[in-house]
Amino acid sequence: MAFNKRVKIKAVLDQNLIGQEITLMGWVRTKRSNKNVSFIALNDGSIITNYQVVADPNLISEEILKKCSTGACLKVSGIVVESQGAGQSSELHAKSIEILGEADPEKFPLQPKKHSLEFLRDIAHLRMRTNTFGAVFRVRHALAFAVHKYFNDRGFFYIHTPIITASDAEGAGEMFRVTTLDLKNLPKDEAGGIDFKQDFFEKETNLTVSGQLEGELAAMALGEIYTFGPTFRAENSNTTRHLAEFWMIEPEMAFYDAEDNQNLAEDFLKYVINYALENCAEDLQFLDQRAADEEKAKPAEQRAELGLIEKLKFVVENDFVRLTYTEAIDILRNSNHNKKKKFQYLIDSWGADLQSEHERYLVEKHFKKPVILTDYPKEIKAFYMRQNEDGKTVAAMDILFPGIGEIVGGSQREERLDRLTQRMQEMHIPEEELWWYLDTRRFGANPHAGFGLGFERMVLFVTGMGNIRDVIAFPRTPGNAEF
Amino acid sequence: MAFNKRVKIKAVLDQNLIGQEITLMGWVRTKRSNKNVSFIALNDGSIITNYQVVADPNLISEEILKKCSTGACLKVSGIVVESQGAGQSSELHAKSIEILGEADPEKFPLQPKKHSLEFLRDIAHLRMRTNTFGAVFRVRHALAFAVHKYFNDRGFFYIHTPIITASDAEGAGEMFRVTTLDLKNLPKDEAGGIDFKQDFFEKETNLTVSGQLEGELAAMALGEIYTFGPTFRAENSNTTRHLAEFWMIEPEMAFYDAEDNQNLAEDFLKYVINYALENCAEDLQFLDQRAADEEKAKPAEQRAELGLIEKLKFVVENDFVRLTYTEAIDILRNSNHNKKKKFQYLIDSWGADLQSEHERYLVEKHFKKPVILTDYPKEIKAFYMRQNEDGKTVAAMDILFPGIGEIVGGSQREERLDRLTQRMQEMHIPEEELWWYLDTRRFGANPHAGFGLGFERMVLFVTGMGNIRDVIAFPRTPGNAEF
Repeated sequence: MAFNKRVKIKAVLDQNLIGQEITLMGWVRTKRSNKNVSFIALNDGSIITNYQVVADPNLISEEILKKCSTGACLKVSGIVVESQGAGQSSELHAKSIEILGEADPEKFPLQPKKHSLEFLRDIAHLRMRTNTFGAVFRVRHALAFAVHKYFNDRGFFYIHTPIITASDAEGAGEMFRVTTLDLKNLPKDEAGGIDFKQDFFEKETNLTVSGQLEGELAAMALGEIYTFGPTFRAENSNTTRHLAEFWMIEPEMAFYDAEDNQNLAEDFLKYVINYALENCAEDLQFLDQRAADEEKAKPAEQRAELGLIEKLKFVVENDFVRLTYTEAIDILRNSNHNKKKKFQYLIDSWGADLQSEHERYLVEKHFKKPVILTDYPKEIKAFYMRQNEDGKTVAAMDILFPGIGEIVGGSQREERLDRLTQRMQEMHIPEEELWWYLDTRRFGANPHAGFGLGFERMVLFVTGMGNIRDVIAFPRTPGNAEF
Repeated sequence: MAFNKRVKIKAVLDQNLIGQEITLMGWVRTKRSNKNVSFIALNDGSIITNYQVVADPNLISEEILKKCSTGACLKVSGIVVESQGAGQSSELHAKSIEILGEADPEKFPLQPKKHSLEFLRDIAHLRMRTNTFGAVFRVRHALAFAVHKYFNDRGFFYIHTPIITASDAEGAGEMFRVTTLDLKNLPKDEAGGIDFKQDFFEKETNLTVSGQLEGELAAMALGEIYTFGPTFRAENSNTTRHLAEFWMIEPEMAFYDAEDNQNLAEDFLKYVINYALENCAEDLQFLDQRAADEEKAKPAEQRAELGLIEKLKFVVENDFVRLTYTEAIDILRNSNHNKKKKFQYLIDSWGADLQSEHERYLVEKHFKKPVILTDYPKEIKAFYMRQNEDGKTVAAMDILFPGIGEIVGGSQREERLDRLTQRMQEMHIPEEELWWYLDTRRFGANPHAGFGLGFERMVLFVTGMGNIRDVIAFPRTPGNAEF
């Protein structure tokens, strides 16, 4: 059922409506006219393709045609006719055009020319009307739907974990404070400190950095669950890979060990990417061409070996490489890159945290495939990861993607109460704050695992965009909370 | 593909596995034993139904059987055998039982007896292991998936609107401040005020109360969009209907008028409820019985006329009543309820805001159907609602549900720049803060509409639960941000 009287351009292109009278509504992308006819390229957001409206000046007044400028919103009624020219198979011969909303050519910022991504970021409220951002946000939608469909089809339950939390125990990064206290007149407690008992939640609260710990609670009841919600990091990182507000997907599964977890993550990533390939053909073709044009501007030796769609297919069709941190360190230490001191941080011993340059070397130079790195030193990983029998490593996994680096981080979780509390003590994490988390190890514990996927990194990978600010509608970064 | 070696109980019940050797993993709900045999009711969260494990003390040691107490987590391997008794068609004859995690009967709080909802709220980390909350959260998942599926199938795009915003122009309610400033040492500006230039976003920021305004920006490019994300109200409301953190669904559609909007909302609500009826049969049967038991405890005149499932079917199968605010005021003013002064707030004149008691009277007493109320006085509605030609009302709609009251609020949006800015001036809303919103009326404007659905109110309606704190995993309310 359609709820309004227009036909979407996607539907016109998908069906054979030749000879039918229809009404289109959309925005003018371009118009070219001669004495005898005007051709208007109309876009309604349903698909990247513009639909050609043919307007005869004997039927449509000059005054109306003049207002059909780039950005104007039109209601066009007419007959679908087989196209004369190349390109589309049909076009609309207008019987009437109504101007729903004008767009003064002197003022409308999106004229039919190439605009820089930086410029478009400043007008993020309008940029979705461009080919590039229309494609990005349709693909983003498809990826989000694929996430829900994948888990739903497999009996996982979607859990909304809290956004505001009083727990700051995880230590995953700097946090944003949430408060209703009057900053100009902060209440004091008896000791002269701030009296958070008077705050909305009667204690200090922050924006969540991860839903994992609460997700585990749900998995310990429902079996397999996932979260998909916003998370926050108050880090002053002005990079092309960091946002202060981003969306995370965090599945947690009872009865999964580390290998089950790896199998799920690989299958999940391939499914979601393949869903985009199958459902976003037009948008990905456009983005593939766009990425190819970007590559041409680079020096030959920096160009990607695979085009965007080739790269996505390659990931879907090939097994990910799986190796341990220890094996990776050996490869890196013995690499010519290390010997020739091309790494900024040279690898000389076991235990070093891997930098982005090392991850990219493994993925892009050495294996030329996505990599699942496992069994990291416990010192560089979180307290909740399951301790391996060697006493040195934990059952962690990071999945590394070409051009992106870490796209997934996860682990088997430590289900043994004594090991978990011992590690918390070593890392100075207060047990009383996580009493509820520890309860799941006291009552009906079981081996379980999970991982987190930064959704915007996935969108970045699939769209081939270069800056994470260009794959979320209204990015939040240091100094920027516009719109 | 299953990623671990167990079979889910839902799969065992759905398929005929008689004679096969399988492994189940799950939590003990109850155990009853005699000298010759133990019966263990196992639940793994995949379905509300417990599966019967039959343990022969000749095969399973007494020590193991003793540990199979309520709440313990087991791995059971055995043969699926046709059941002797009534009830389920099959049961598992255990060859081996491994205790994955014990649950000390002296300490585990969820013993097999009726616990109060208040008690379970205090142990929200464990309550999902009960029948009631398992059912609620499986239904919640199904409803969330139905929302995504409905919109995806109809070509709507999911947009993630920002959680942190600098805009406080909408005035939908009190907001939570978001800051990284050190409260103990707040930076001052030259005038002696707080220097928000030093805050993370270099200005004052809050948690969003609605994604609508940003959603409209996306609809003005992509046509039909929806949001589904957390929203926040810092209101000190300790009721069964309010949360400080809740999830909202907000579709926004270019080219929709008020009637299109009503048609969509009614169709959407029916689809989502019907999806639960079709996909959550076991859980809804349990919740239907639970609601019936609750009703029995009430005085006869307060009991609901319809059972839970009957009520859901009634909503799906009947047209909603549509009437204007003005018509509703007439009905209320002339009602016996009003004449006999049974309303706390008597209706004596046009223009009064409707209270919950009036909404419930219309829905539960007068029409006995869901009601779409339209065309409210502009004074009691938001600035962005489209002004009707009468100069007094706006093209608003509220959808009222039995037992819930307002479940949806929406409107056709004011697309005419002059009318919009005039209304903003009347309501003292600063234009410069909403320059981007006004731009969509400057460039390519069109008639458009949208609505908001509080997701937890939908879950409340479908599950028949009485308190909104019982339909979100970890509720946030004044003084409560535990877990």
